[in-house]
Amino acid sequence: MSLTIGVDVGGTKVAAGVVDDQGRILEKLRRPTPSTNPELTAGVIAEVTNLLKAKYADVSAVGLGAAGFVDETRSVVLFAANLAWRDEPLKQKVEKLTGLPVVVENDANAMAWGEYRFGAGRGEEHVVCVTLGTGIGGGIIVDGRLYRGRHGIGAELGHVRVVPDGRRCGCGNRGCWEQYASGNALSHEARDLARVEPGRAARMMELSGGTVEITGLAVSQAAHEGDPAALECFDTVADWAGQGLADLTATLDPALFIIGGGLSAVADLFLDRMTKVYTESVTGRGHRGIAEIRIAELGADAGIVGAADLARQQ
Amino acid sequence: MSLTIGVDVGGTKVAAGVVDDQGRILEKLRRPTPSTNPELTAGVIAEVTNLLKAKYADVSAVGLGAAGFVDETRSVVLFAANLAWRDEPLKQKVEKLTGLPVVVENDANAMAWGEYRFGAGRGEEHVVCVTLGTGIGGGIIVDGRLYRGRHGIGAELGHVRVVPDGRRCGCGNRGCWEQYASGNALSHEARDLARVEPGRAARMMELSGGTVEITGLAVSQAAHEGDPAALECFDTVADWAGQGLADLTATLDPALFIIGGGLSAVADLFLDRMTKVYTESVTGRGHRGIAEIRIAELGADAGIVGAADLARQQ
Repeated sequence: MSLTIGVDVGGTKVAAGVVDDQGRILEKLRRPTPSTNPELTAGVIAEVTNLLKAKYADVSAVGLGAAGFVDETRSVVLFAANLAWRDEPLKQKVEKLTGLPVVVENDANAMAWGEYRFGAGRGEEHVVCVTLGTGIGGGIIVDGRLYRGRHGIGAELGHVRVVPDGRRCGCGNRGCWEQYASGNALSHEARDLARVEPGRAARMMELSGGTVEITGLAVSQAAHEGDPAALECFDTVADWAGQGLADLTATLDPALFIIGGGLSAVADLFLDRMTKVYTESVTGRGHRGIAEIRIAELGADAGIVGAADLARQQ
Repeated sequence: MSLTIGVDVGGTKVAAGVVDDQGRILEKLRRPTPSTNPELTAGVIAEVTNLLKAKYADVSAVGLGAAGFVDETRSVVLFAANLAWRDEPLKQKVEKLTGLPVVVENDANAMAWGEYRFGAGRGEEHVVCVTLGTGIGGGIIVDGRLYRGRHGIGAELGHVRVVPDGRRCGCGNRGCWEQYASGNALSHEARDLARVEPGRAARMMELSGGTVEITGLAVSQAAHEGDPAALECFDTVADWAGQGLADLTATLDPALFIIGGGLSAVADLFLDRMTKVYTESVTGRGHRGIAEIRIAELGADAGIVGAADLARQQ
């Protein structure tokens, strides 16, 4: 049996797992990310890898899903918004510290690959994975291969502009899709509403410790209770999400969208409306096939499973 | 020497050519398109094909570049905005009338393939071709292959929404990119300007027969004369074009954009500004490689050359 290790390296945590060739995780480890120091980050990745390797002697390679821009050779993290990586030779460092061959991949790409191989995308060849989390990540599978683009930085779907002169984005631009259709966008809607209609937002504020700094979790809980203001926030996010999928269809015409990320755990609150808006917004509708929309199946493990499988395929 | 015939079938004309395996056109024929009658359209395609075949006996196949949605089997035109095709079995009809194997492809895809194989895209593997004509067409080359999407309808780049509740589009939606960055968009800007500031638009109106129905040609001529209002119209279109390329880069991260279509003939009036806006708008700029932008080389022949080559490769 061929085993590889997948490591999901985000801004707050490093999650690693030993994965078999059927995408099953045999064992997992988790550490906080020392995000401000690249040497310590590499050290933690190596630590969890070596611990797992010591226990599973036949591990043959390591795949890293890294929250940043990864170069086309899948070796160097060029830039990361939430970690201190700048032109970081991550592959080289972790190979030196572990003695195993390493593949580095963008974290959203790794998740998409995991879902494509072992989750909601099994059996499809044209898949676009959209991760609705704090922001929006993306991964594209074309003819059964991960699409990386010329410089390794494809599928940054959250940074397509959807509103001219729109909301500021952490990427330095304005109007990016992730400012309108993510978990952060959900909070943004709720806080906006609380600012101008505090009475209507009372339940969401109550669930956020009595402040207008309403969290996505509070919006979800209130919406599940039937709170009309919270449901309205979800509707707004669903509309932006559905329109974005329609725009991606104009460009990519996939067979399938997989919706992952934190918001996918509360898909009951937006999936129907998002799908309706998508269906009604696709260009050429009525004369063409459109994509199916499915919710991701692997949850938070998708990145580990995908990174491990990419390492196996290298 | 292997010869194939490429036919570019648009709403107004059918242009056919015999093409060799180096992408050279040996002979061309042209007919008006009987666009309201699918039988007559197929008849004209067959007529020009048979005339060329009679003269070049070793022609082995026909490629059709059709202005419409083409299904994933490259046989049926599902829908066309400017022709009467609805689920039209074009491959079958033309094969019957010519006795040659036929491949049907979307016209913008055929143009992109022509430029990729024998024009501005030679040697690149990740190319996005953007045709700025009356509207905007697109073609995507991934790893040296034409990207068609699951249903054959990928790369409809002109129908990505760039302005919520924006200008009406012929596709039934609002705010599509082609309403802001095409030849029609150029006229739209000029007419808008003439409506509110007729004095400033005087030269463009003069060149359009004294009416406010300013043509794209009039804007180009006035701009070449240095008319400030015409130059302003080009600037506006350049800004929308550059932003659109930045958005495509977020999704596709190509090595190269090829700009074709009617507007590419006056690239001197917008290329610099479009490239500047593109460079300044790409997400993650400063931390990543970005695409080169080149003007198409094959002009109006790209569709013929591309369709013929796709037929050869079938």
